[in-house]
Amino acid sequence: MDLKPTKPLSGFVELLPAAQRCFDYCAGRMLNVLQNSGFSVLDLPAIERAEVLTDKDNWDEIETQMFLFQKGETKMGLRYDGTVGLARYVAGHLNDLVFPFRAAQFSKRYRGERAQRGRYREFYQMDLDIMGINTLSTNYDAEIIAVIARALASVEEFVGPACVHVGSRPFWDALFEHLGLTAGQKKDVFVLIDKKDKIGDDDFDAALRDVLQDYDLVAQITAVFHDGYSRFVGASPALDAAITELNAFMDILHAIGVNNAQADLSITRGLAYYTGLVFEFKLLEHPELGTAAGGGRYADLAGKFSKTKIIGVGAAIGFSRIFWALLEGGKIDLTRFSHPVRAAVLVMGNNNVPYAMNAAWALRDAGIVTALYLDTEKKFKNQIEFSDKIGAEYSVIIGDTEAASGTVALKNMETGSQVQISVADVIKELKNGL
Amino acid sequence: MDLKPTKPLSGFVELLPAAQRCFDYCAGRMLNVLQNSGFSVLDLPAIERAEVLTDKDNWDEIETQMFLFQKGETKMGLRYDGTVGLARYVAGHLNDLVFPFRAAQFSKRYRGERAQRGRYREFYQMDLDIMGINTLSTNYDAEIIAVIARALASVEEFVGPACVHVGSRPFWDALFEHLGLTAGQKKDVFVLIDKKDKIGDDDFDAALRDVLQDYDLVAQITAVFHDGYSRFVGASPALDAAITELNAFMDILHAIGVNNAQADLSITRGLAYYTGLVFEFKLLEHPELGTAAGGGRYADLAGKFSKTKIIGVGAAIGFSRIFWALLEGGKIDLTRFSHPVRAAVLVMGNNNVPYAMNAAWALRDAGIVTALYLDTEKKFKNQIEFSDKIGAEYSVIIGDTEAASGTVALKNMETGSQVQISVADVIKELKNGL
Repeated sequence: MDLKPTKPLSGFVELLPAAQRCFDYCAGRMLNVLQNSGFSVLDLPAIERAEVLTDKDNWDEIETQMFLFQKGETKMGLRYDGTVGLARYVAGHLNDLVFPFRAAQFSKRYRGERAQRGRYREFYQMDLDIMGINTLSTNYDAEIIAVIARALASVEEFVGPACVHVGSRPFWDALFEHLGLTAGQKKDVFVLIDKKDKIGDDDFDAALRDVLQDYDLVAQITAVFHDGYSRFVGASPALDAAITELNAFMDILHAIGVNNAQADLSITRGLAYYTGLVFEFKLLEHPELGTAAGGGRYADLAGKFSKTKIIGVGAAIGFSRIFWALLEGGKIDLTRFSHPVRAAVLVMGNNNVPYAMNAAWALRDAGIVTALYLDTEKKFKNQIEFSDKIGAEYSVIIGDTEAASGTVALKNMETGSQVQISVADVIKELKNGL
Repeated sequence: MDLKPTKPLSGFVELLPAAQRCFDYCAGRMLNVLQNSGFSVLDLPAIERAEVLTDKDNWDEIETQMFLFQKGETKMGLRYDGTVGLARYVAGHLNDLVFPFRAAQFSKRYRGERAQRGRYREFYQMDLDIMGINTLSTNYDAEIIAVIARALASVEEFVGPACVHVGSRPFWDALFEHLGLTAGQKKDVFVLIDKKDKIGDDDFDAALRDVLQDYDLVAQITAVFHDGYSRFVGASPALDAAITELNAFMDILHAIGVNNAQADLSITRGLAYYTGLVFEFKLLEHPELGTAAGGGRYADLAGKFSKTKIIGVGAAIGFSRIFWALLEGGKIDLTRFSHPVRAAVLVMGNNNVPYAMNAAWALRDAGIVTALYLDTEKKFKNQIEFSDKIGAEYSVIIGDTEAASGTVALKNMETGSQVQISVADVIKELKNGL
């Protein structure tokens, strides 16, 4: 019989234990920042009705982008982001939640298209959203950014420092209006601005000329990037309002100690549902990884589910993509996570198993991570080799002498020194060693 | 436009924040027991190749039981348990892992069939497995049972005490051999024993008579349940070996303090891949929920993936099913999880936002869960109402006076008393109050 493949499907990642421990440690630290900031961690179904996932009905095309299936009459599929489920959940629980409601999610998402380098078909994102009914101060945008900055700072030893760039949808709306662009031009120019970083300044300028057919209009738009947005102060009330909002917002970010924050109108977050300020975090030492987190303000999260207007500000941290890329690049030091076991209990003689198990539980109950080697017929040499291989700091060796005298032989695996002491003393010794 | 449905698909569960916090708390406590016992927590893909999920090729039938889809030439589907992926992973990483290898998983699994009451299409299981190459002492079976007992005990305040029943596959093999059953009878009788608890003693006896057509054979088999398995001591060497193993095993369980453990040969774990001892945990106060955890020993975990023989003992704790059932029955007290926020920072006047945010971060950095209410134009009455609704123990009120004097007004939401103190003193006060 042919053996089945042992590799996961392409686009799917599974980690070895040490890397997984590091990933879980990082995720735990970031989630802790969110929880300390009053976010409720939600766990929503990974499968949603197709009509919840999309408004489109060109199933053939959607099917290549998503994991879809049909059960009875119902088309359903795996979520591709955290927002669709959140919108449904919040709209369905308006009376069960207190607004402004702070929601966090850390869950797997799925993309059906063919996997490419750096693109995954299953990945984690950490979402955070603050939602209000009918109203929500832009102060919450600053709060979200501060929480993400703290979350990323909590794993800085692995990913390095981050920066955040803040853009403004209202600024561009006001500028396009001020310049008298047509609806078609507005959309085309917006798409170009979103692509600007990828295509480079020269191609950007050329494409703008194609769309606008007017050198002055092109000059006015590129001036935003070359001379700064402040040159449009006084140009129109809407531009003044957008610029004042952005400046006041940056002042708050600086006043609350968000590091490396700057206004950057090239940040647009694509054609998504954002309607106000938008922002992206990047890693200063890993610019090649692109956006580490991004989000912004939306005017109507759940319009398709409820007549109640839910305004919000939300963001997603693409943590697994970043972590996996850094890990693959050998840029994450896993040393601390390679040897998670402090004590390995080794047992000579099967009659001593209950004594050894009780010793192991005494250590575990004291919070000492303890493995038990229970193939008691194996030679001492093999047993101590196991202890060495899993990187235990100590071997706790139990044979007839130890069981009879109520002691264990505690061997320090680094120094090789060995003492005959009680389990209570082992706990004292290992707790001091922490 | 019609509004889209806000309920999740049938068979899918999503919890309100307080229940979710309780669920996460329980899962965290149980995982902590596993980690303290030296288990590595793995996170495997939820999607596997169809050929990994099943050996069958009647796709139409399989498709009703699973969530399957095809991408290009590849048939794939969502995992229905944790074992298939584990077998693939371990077989693929024989040289990266140290054996005996302790693996834990806590992940979502999927069943495609139509949802029934108490059956879910998406659910969590917590798996634990200890695997050895070619050899693995049955002492590890006792270790697995002890770890599950501790894990369930760590959430006893929610689920009540548990018991464990231990069966023996080798006992039945030996007895069937001793009684001279045909291969077909062996299989049929085994299925009946597995169903015995469900169908009741009378139907069991009748069905046995149908299969065996021999009153003496029926009497010998039912004697196992009525008179106990000890009556077969001396009947054959294989029966003696099986009985000795089971008795020695129960002695170890009792010696290491596993509560409510008993030998019970009606436990067979169906027709699954188990080959040795098998066991099931039940909740003493909730017998109607059936099996809380179950597992056993398998002789060859990954034979379809590798020529290396991986022997193991494993189990799955069906925690989400139990938790959801108890929650739905109103049997879980969520009081402690209803008010997760200790302090709500309220801000009067938008110019005081940076001062208030810095105060909030000082509290959060001190480990105090703190929400910020940032709609600064709202009246004090509305702000304190928010604080009350989210169940904050304290409101930390900040206006011009506070910002100017470097203080806050700390209001105890239960007593209503209010003091004007520094943020540092708030931290002292709240930390004492823990």
